Amino acid sequence: MALSAAYKEIIEKAIKAIHERNFYAQYPEHPKAYGEEAPAKGLETYNEQLGKPFIGLLQQNPVAWIGEEISPYTGKPLGITYPSFEVDTLIVRAGRAFGEWKKVSVEDRAEVLVDALERVKNRFFEMAYATQHTTGQSFVMSFQASGPHASDRALETLALGYEEINRFPSAVTWEKSMGKTTVVLQKQFKAIPKGVGLVIGCSTFPTWNSVPGLFASLITGNTAIVKPHPKSVYPIAIVVAEIQAALKAKGFDSNVCQLAVDSSTQLITKQLAEHPLVKLIDYTGGSAFGNYVESLPGKVTFTEKAGVNSVIIDSVNELKPVVQNLAFAVSLYSGQMCTAPQNFFIPAGGVKQGDTVIPYEEVKKALVDAIAGIAGHAQMGPGTLGAIQSETTLKRVNSMKEVDVTVLLEPKAVANPEFPEARTCSPIVLEVGAHDVGVYENELFGPIILIVKTKDTNQSVEIARQMAEKHGAITFSAYTTDEDTANMIFDELESVFAPVSLNLTGMIWVNQHAGFSDFHVTGGNPAGNASFTNPEYLNKRFVWVGHRRV
Amino acid sequence: MALSAAYKEIIEKAIKAIHERNFYAQYPEHPKAYGEEAPAKGLETYNEQLGKPFIGLLQQNPVAWIGEEISPYTGKPLGITYPSFEVDTLIVRAGRAFGEWKKVSVEDRAEVLVDALERVKNRFFEMAYATQHTTGQSFVMSFQASGPHASDRALETLALGYEEINRFPSAVTWEKSMGKTTVVLQKQFKAIPKGVGLVIGCSTFPTWNSVPGLFASLITGNTAIVKPHPKSVYPIAIVVAEIQAALKAKGFDSNVCQLAVDSSTQLITKQLAEHPLVKLIDYTGGSAFGNYVESLPGKVTFTEKAGVNSVIIDSVNELKPVVQNLAFAVSLYSGQMCTAPQNFFIPAGGVKQGDTVIPYEEVKKALVDAIAGIAGHAQMGPGTLGAIQSETTLKRVNSMKEVDVTVLLEPKAVANPEFPEARTCSPIVLEVGAHDVGVYENELFGPIILIVKTKDTNQSVEIARQMAEKHGAITFSAYTTDEDTANMIFDELESVFAPVSLNLTGMIWVNQHAGFSDFHVTGGNPAGNASFTNPEYLNKRFVWVGHRRV
Repeated sequence: MALSAAYKEIIEKAIKAIHERNFYAQYPEHPKAYGEEAPAKGLETYNEQLGKPFIGLLQQNPVAWIGEEISPYTGKPLGITYPSFEVDTLIVRAGRAFGEWKKVSVEDRAEVLVDALERVKNRFFEMAYATQHTTGQSFVMSFQASGPHASDRALETLALGYEEINRFPSAVTWEKSMGKTTVVLQKQFKAIPKGVGLVIGCSTFPTWNSVPGLFASLITGNTAIVKPHPKSVYPIAIVVAEIQAALKAKGFDSNVCQLAVDSSTQLITKQLAEHPLVKLIDYTGGSAFGNYVESLPGKVTFTEKAGVNSVIIDSVNELKPVVQNLAFAVSLYSGQMCTAPQNFFIPAGGVKQGDTVIPYEEVKKALVDAIAGIAGHAQMGPGTLGAIQSETTLKRVNSMKEVDVTVLLEPKAVANPEFPEARTCSPIVLEVGAHDVGVYENELFGPIILIVKTKDTNQSVEIARQMAEKHGAITFSAYTTDEDTANMIFDELESVFAPVSLNLTGMIWVNQHAGFSDFHVTGGNPAGNASFTNPEYLNKRFVWVGHRRV
Repeated sequence: MALSAAYKEIIEKAIKAIHERNFYAQYPEHPKAYGEEAPAKGLETYNEQLGKPFIGLLQQNPVAWIGEEISPYTGKPLGITYPSFEVDTLIVRAGRAFGEWKKVSVEDRAEVLVDALERVKNRFFEMAYATQHTTGQSFVMSFQASGPHASDRALETLALGYEEINRFPSAVTWEKSMGKTTVVLQKQFKAIPKGVGLVIGCSTFPTWNSVPGLFASLITGNTAIVKPHPKSVYPIAIVVAEIQAALKAKGFDSNVCQLAVDSSTQLITKQLAEHPLVKLIDYTGGSAFGNYVESLPGKVTFTEKAGVNSVIIDSVNELKPVVQNLAFAVSLYSGQMCTAPQNFFIPAGGVKQGDTVIPYEEVKKALVDAIAGIAGHAQMGPGTLGAIQSETTLKRVNSMKEVDVTVLLEPKAVANPEFPEARTCSPIVLEVGAHDVGVYENELFGPIILIVKTKDTNQSVEIARQMAEKHGAITFSAYTTDEDTANMIFDELESVFAPVSLNLTGMIWVNQHAGFSDFHVTGGNPAGNASFTNPEYLNKRFVWVGHRRV
């Protein structure tokens, strides 16, 4: 076995893209790129899977078959069950598989993993439906996020891992001249993997957020146990099944990658995370559990927790495209993205537009109208907002009405003709003052927008910086036509390691982080300690060991 | 200002060497390479400094002048005093300097830091005397370790930091075709430094162990406070003074790098380490304090603590060169190297030499005789063993006589005609059984050798592996002529991330880790969490932040 020319080319193109950081996609995001029959075939496979055990995994002798997924669109259980295992079984199998996998060359590991991605590609449409009906994302978003975008990000870590391990020669003849004699040593440099990795998934982005860590652990020679959110198993189960199939096809132990399904009433995450053989943990989810993960002794952790994402509006060329862009950014998947903006800082003195100043009240109204416009748009609304993944999010939105602040826009159900039973909710928009830190310093996950009236842009920046420092920020959006103000914003936000998106309008939104180019989460503030995908994300997963012999 | 062609060439050669991992030295280790007059000039400068304040630093307004260095060779105080400062003064100056330094380009930072190394080169001989009379190293070792070898390791981190920061483009025009339109974004990728770094030095290798972290922090845009061991200040004070001179020469704030001298009775290390503005800590020293450093919340730490280094003798081509090599390895600087072997595992059934078996007792005797031979050799002894840095080490050696185990070789003073008052001590060699884990599992810093009689090589390897896993190992030495046994040893020691040196004889010893080639400490076992110099050593010191604008 070796790395085939075709797969090597894929990896080399990916490495080139990582270094160029321009646009690149190995897996096209347009559904049409996958052939005319693919969507219908995907739907058929999805429908056939409903109500049945998921039999695609190669994990033997489960203790039970469990599943509790419910479609946010239909309100009905998917009825799919997955094999469940004792924690000890998972660990023992992962440990045994590690003994073999750690000795496999990075070329052979790459061959298996690119093969797995190519297999996953054939199931993008099934995954899209699986994602839609577990997360509540729209179909198109489900397709793109769980399919091509996730696979691109997986390929990105795979390629960077391949590069990192090949960065130093595996063998060198070291020669040191000592005058009359020469000392000669044969040296070997080995990237030794850390051990068993645990990947803890979330309910809203079951593959996009999990495959980077999964492929990063696997390419560097670690084995992986994937523990999905019990309400969002199906999409990542497909990925694990295809990795196992690719492993088996090349003659490797399929337990190199295992799925560890649990139930909401009997979670096994802590048992897995605390097990001494688990050395690496990738985590996406809430901050409280993320902080627990980071605190575990003897583990290398890669977390994406929550942040408070801010928008600053200082000055604009034209207000309309700005509020349209922002309204779309907050409406997309009803704000259930870790990258969605939450706090909008607008100066009391208004916003400069060319030579005029638009008063604060008008800016506010324009933004609220734009948000209401999308939610109320019969065609655009349901497809943009999707459905609400969990009842908790819906409750959070409604509870905001009880907070003693001005409600600028009431949340409403969003009529979805295709799915009349869908759990939907348009954004609630609230208005607070700069002093209301107790309200806006919370990450209010879901379609909750706070407009914060500030003294001026300096105060906006200062508060946004503090929020990022104290609570983390994954994205930050600013609008200014003044270059000095722009530089001040870059400086201030850099000091808390938050990336700035400046003056976005049109077909690009602050929520989007493109594979091979944008770092997703910087790892420098409380929103998370890792970044898709910087070199640290790979080289923390193995240890360079150098042997010498005469 | 920019990076000059000459300095750029130095960096590019270093980067090439890092990737080739063959022998490379920017700074020759032969004293003769520095001209005929250099040694005498160095001694003169050293002698002039004795008994006087060290005035080369650019740090203003000290609260006191303090110093407590004592020569292990003469037993007399050096009488040199250094400026001392309040912790808050050091922090405020480091923080202010950070505001400027973080914005300096990596090219300009490299210009300053290579310039600093070139300045340090002119003081190698003064540093050699300074090192000899604070650490107790022999003159030649002092010269090589504190001078060229340390500077090479500093250049190694500097070059790798330069490469890491230049790994991604600082600006990119990102273009994504969306069918009829194209989205264009201007992206910036910035390596944002973490903040103020603290470098905590040790008494035995005041520059070699500290300059890698120091230059790593500085090249990545952090500022640094260097807190040396109060008994070993002079050598690193020279380095800090030259960094400050190089900073000043290029118009930068010299507080980018500060020396923080304290006294044994009033240590400021914890105050500095726990300060919230200190984000990075480089540490060399004992395990207890190292574990404290690693446990500090909110800090990125790079530690080299202690390990229990083992030697396994299974089979040899010829025993004599083996025991000679090992005897030298343990005698060099009287075992006061973190890389020196301590536990020698020899099978009870003896050691195969070609077709014969040398009985255990004979192997033991050969080893003890070789060690005694070096210590008792009038010419070779004093220069190899040097002096004992601290009284505590001497006490530890003598206390070993009280342990109820067989003493195979009594420690003795080593006559040094040049320094009759030198604090010296030849190695004590003790014999224990495999069951005496309570004795050999301790790191016994200094000239203390334990011969452990094992059942067979499998037991030797198993115990050595356990020691490395539980207590850490920086080096590991093995002798076997059997390829299967060699592979088994590589496998077992890799599992605890310990590097193996196999069958070393002649002019190369397990203690030596060559810059640009050998990783010093792997970071994978309790001997330390960092490695000179893997990419993690650099990229943990900064955060990639990507800005986007229309």
